[in-house]
Amino acid sequence: MRTTVGIIGAGPAGLLLARLLQGAGIDSVVLESRDRAYVEHRQRAGILEQGTVDVLRAAGAGERMDREGLPHDGIELRYDRKRHRVDFPALTGGRSVMVYAQTEVCKDLIALQLKEGGPLLFEAEALAVEGADTAAPRVRFRRDGVEDVLECDYVVGCDGFWGVARRAIPEELVRVFERTYPFGWLGILADVAPSHDELVYARHDRGFALLSMRSPSVSRLYLQVPEGTEADAWGDDEIWAELERRFETADDWSLERGPITQKSVTPMRSYVHEPMRHGRLFLAGDAAHIVPPTGAKGLNLAIGDVVTFARALTHERRTGSAELLDAYSETCLRRVWQAERFSYDMTTLLHRAPGATPFEDRLQLARLERIAASRAAETDLAEAYTGFPFG
Amino acid sequence: MRTTVGIIGAGPAGLLLARLLQGAGIDSVVLESRDRAYVEHRQRAGILEQGTVDVLRAAGAGERMDREGLPHDGIELRYDRKRHRVDFPALTGGRSVMVYAQTEVCKDLIALQLKEGGPLLFEAEALAVEGADTAAPRVRFRRDGVEDVLECDYVVGCDGFWGVARRAIPEELVRVFERTYPFGWLGILADVAPSHDELVYARHDRGFALLSMRSPSVSRLYLQVPEGTEADAWGDDEIWAELERRFETADDWSLERGPITQKSVTPMRSYVHEPMRHGRLFLAGDAAHIVPPTGAKGLNLAIGDVVTFARALTHERRTGSAELLDAYSETCLRRVWQAERFSYDMTTLLHRAPGATPFEDRLQLARLERIAASRAAETDLAEAYTGFPFG
Repeated sequence: MRTTVGIIGAGPAGLLLARLLQGAGIDSVVLESRDRAYVEHRQRAGILEQGTVDVLRAAGAGERMDREGLPHDGIELRYDRKRHRVDFPALTGGRSVMVYAQTEVCKDLIALQLKEGGPLLFEAEALAVEGADTAAPRVRFRRDGVEDVLECDYVVGCDGFWGVARRAIPEELVRVFERTYPFGWLGILADVAPSHDELVYARHDRGFALLSMRSPSVSRLYLQVPEGTEADAWGDDEIWAELERRFETADDWSLERGPITQKSVTPMRSYVHEPMRHGRLFLAGDAAHIVPPTGAKGLNLAIGDVVTFARALTHERRTGSAELLDAYSETCLRRVWQAERFSYDMTTLLHRAPGATPFEDRLQLARLERIAASRAAETDLAEAYTGFPFG
Repeated sequence: MRTTVGIIGAGPAGLLLARLLQGAGIDSVVLESRDRAYVEHRQRAGILEQGTVDVLRAAGAGERMDREGLPHDGIELRYDRKRHRVDFPALTGGRSVMVYAQTEVCKDLIALQLKEGGPLLFEAEALAVEGADTAAPRVRFRRDGVEDVLECDYVVGCDGFWGVARRAIPEELVRVFERTYPFGWLGILADVAPSHDELVYARHDRGFALLSMRSPSVSRLYLQVPEGTEADAWGDDEIWAELERRFETADDWSLERGPITQKSVTPMRSYVHEPMRHGRLFLAGDAAHIVPPTGAKGLNLAIGDVVTFARALTHERRTGSAELLDAYSETCLRRVWQAERFSYDMTTLLHRAPGATPFEDRLQLARLERIAASRAAETDLAEAYTGFPFG
């Protein structure tokens, strides 16, 4: 098999990239190790930045998102029995975010790709990227028990943290930046209307809690739990009671309960792999960087990476100049590091670290008070939350 | 001896308080354990926030400051061979700071007090505050080897971190919040014109450096050094060479050297004592809170405390209501915690912590890039640097 751009991974980044390239008249093949149902149903992110929304629309993948997605113009912060709403459009000149689950983005892009796009091969497991630093990189993959090779001009690894693409970059060229956190998120999906119409981020002495949603009838809720916690260690009633405590639902607000349909624990990690490019191999999304979920940057970063790649390759096709391709890693990493910073700050702002000192507790409250009191501090948050500009 | 307000400590806070009270027709006595020359020459802070400048002027203590002080409209950040200037008035609606040494503020206030004010007793060492929770608090003190008692309606402890006032608050009512840092500042005074007309804050892999000044002909420079470093461990040439490295003076700028006239090491500490009031005893400045010097908040916080006290007592005299006096601790602590937060953030932004991970190094650079790129983030810094509003 041969194509111009071999794309490993049919998550939102890989799928969108295929679509963007097609729009520019560049052919591609997408290899995905899982089957379609798995890709369409794995629970991941659910908040799309303004720029992600814009690019999905421009790619013709925004129709159902605009019909079913929930535009959100703000978030609520809760701390110390106080509430503060951050009004995104007022602070950022009209930018906001969209609640629309990653599963739905994938469904829309898969349907489009199968209808109008190039090859999208499910259950095609990439085994290795070879010749990344030559003019003819290849992806070895296995499908139906048979090994095959995809010959490419470029390979883009959108294959996540556990993928094979990253391994094709020689170790001696790589720097890894990493931080783990001594806690994770116990997340539930529940068949109940969200108890608040915007996301609620709660800082509490017992730990962080987040109220989010997937749709007008499905709530997504999270509790900070110690690292290594098993999801089954928490009974359903216990989860609801703990959520109520952390949201401090005493007064004028209550948390509606409903059947919990899914329960899982997400570990928290910050990770950056530099460089994001080696020869004709380009890494995008989780293949190159991980953020803790606080602040919802993961999916949006991945989208930014593939937008940057598509622009760079289009530029090369139009002008003959590889300057943007050569700058890919640097361009992406500027945005990546801002998202890493923001995700780290949101995480440390809201989570209770084991062994936190009373001084650190008060610092958290002072930071939250600052956001509530200063338009500048609040704008800084709103700009970051609604998204840094694509490279 | 008897007075309305007994003030312990003739630093800038105690001296200004005596003057503010006098302006309101309230008599006071200031007790200072050291002699006048010591108070007028101990090197401390040198940056006055806009609010501090305003209050000194309003108190009639701004004449020499306005003649000899250096108004500063910004600071420069250096990192990763880049420079970024933060323009205070442009970001804060006209606020700025004044470089005028604490020694000079003290000289001006002492001269005024001795000329026009109430008793200011040097070499009068406060031994204890008694009866803080009664209607008649007393300060026991010793002068010329003789013990005496100052009978008061109120006592304000402006006697610094090592003072006696704080000890009069029963331990069981107190909460202390504290953080120490594994580094200090080696500070020098040098008889040479400052090599830059504004303060330069440099983040470098070898550690933090700060270029500051006391006057047009006296430079004040600092180097981050490991905790426990002795000032004499550094030779003069070694200091200049290290400053040059950290300011990265290769290109279009150079650091002028001159005779070093003083050398000392300042430890770095964050400390807050709650509450700041017990009965008729009020704590102000370092007696209740310490910040690391990055961001120059210490002196300005002390000024804010005594302004808050003077307003509260004046209010009580005028209206008979003790509501502002009762709110003193809470009012001051709001501002204190914002200054603690800012001082902590500036410290961690710019210093190299021993054992810092590569991830943390990159976070620092991402924060600095954010300040340089976002008007909101830059405004947040400029607002804090030029000063939070007094209570």
